[in-house]
Amino acid sequence: MTSVADDLRALVRTIPDFPKPGIQFRDITTLMLDRSGLSRAVDALADTVDGPIDLVAAIEARGFAIGGALAVKLGAGLLLIRKDGKLPGKTIAEDYALEYGTDRLAMHVDACTPDARVLVVDDLLATGGTALAAVRLVRRAGGNVVGARFLIDLPELGGGDALVAAGVDARSLLAYEGH
Amino acid sequence: MTSVADDLRALVRTIPDFPKPGIQFRDITTLMLDRSGLSRAVDALADTVDGPIDLVAAIEARGFAIGGALAVKLGAGLLLIRKDGKLPGKTIAEDYALEYGTDRLAMHVDACTPDARVLVVDDLLATGGTALAAVRLVRRAGGNVVGARFLIDLPELGGGDALVAAGVDARSLLAYEGH
Repeated sequence: MTSVADDLRALVRTIPDFPKPGIQFRDITTLMLDRSGLSRAVDALADTVDGPIDLVAAIEARGFAIGGALAVKLGAGLLLIRKDGKLPGKTIAEDYALEYGTDRLAMHVDACTPDARVLVVDDLLATGGTALAAVRLVRRAGGNVVGARFLIDLPELGGGDALVAAGVDARSLLAYEGH
Repeated sequence: MTSVADDLRALVRTIPDFPKPGIQFRDITTLMLDRSGLSRAVDALADTVDGPIDLVAAIEARGFAIGGALAVKLGAGLLLIRKDGKLPGKTIAEDYALEYGTDRLAMHVDACTPDARVLVVDDLLATGGTALAAVRLVRRAGGNVVGARFLIDLPELGGGDALVAAGVDARSLLAYEGH
């Protein structure tokens, strides 16, 4: 008997030395290509959620694919968190650290009703910089971050610990040692 | 009695003069924020599809949100069509024209099984340049493009005609005059 996690893990492709030597890239595009891969992943993520969710806050770009399907599954709205400069309305923005330099995420300032129960979603959790920027955005907009969910976690990079330290219930379906 | 299209149209926000003077930007993020907006849009898109779909080919980035939910709804796999340089595996790429210059879309070369029935999905159809590049990619990879679906069409810009001329069954939920 295999678990859903085992089945999903078998659908993730590992690409060695991408984007640079020594990195084992966990490629979820092969999971998504599978007819039941995305739906099983979304079902498994939904099973980890307690209580109603008002908004799924999905992080650009792969997070949109998971977040869109999960929002429909949970009966929630979908809030798009994008790279700065991509959203047409008035936005708020948060910087986050990259290996070299910084990048910036943005959301529409009016996207979140006060005290909305918000679930942050992305495909992969590494250092947590991106997810924490998303959490800060939602909180600045008045939302209540009830958790963060990921397909994949790389625990050695510390993102899960960083989210827990920020008071976020962070969970993922698959953890990979090494990175 | 109102139609689903009327309900969805009421959820789309128009932002004048974005990204430049004279353009009325149709902002679907407000539709997605609505608890039932995305699911009703996805249901309506699914209703326009005849026969089984093997893969939904979603175009980065807003197309991922719709495509992910639609793939789950249709029981299809999700094929990510991305800006060139974002995919970790071996890719094929196609250029498309922008107002000034060109840009390039890519897909994994092994993402499409031969003769797979593929539905191309994006949020908005304007000139059709992006969608046609996606169609060319899927066909080069051996896929059978059975249609293209969009939330919004701007018919004056000719994308629908260009897709039909390329032999693609193109349909959208909402059409807007002017652009």
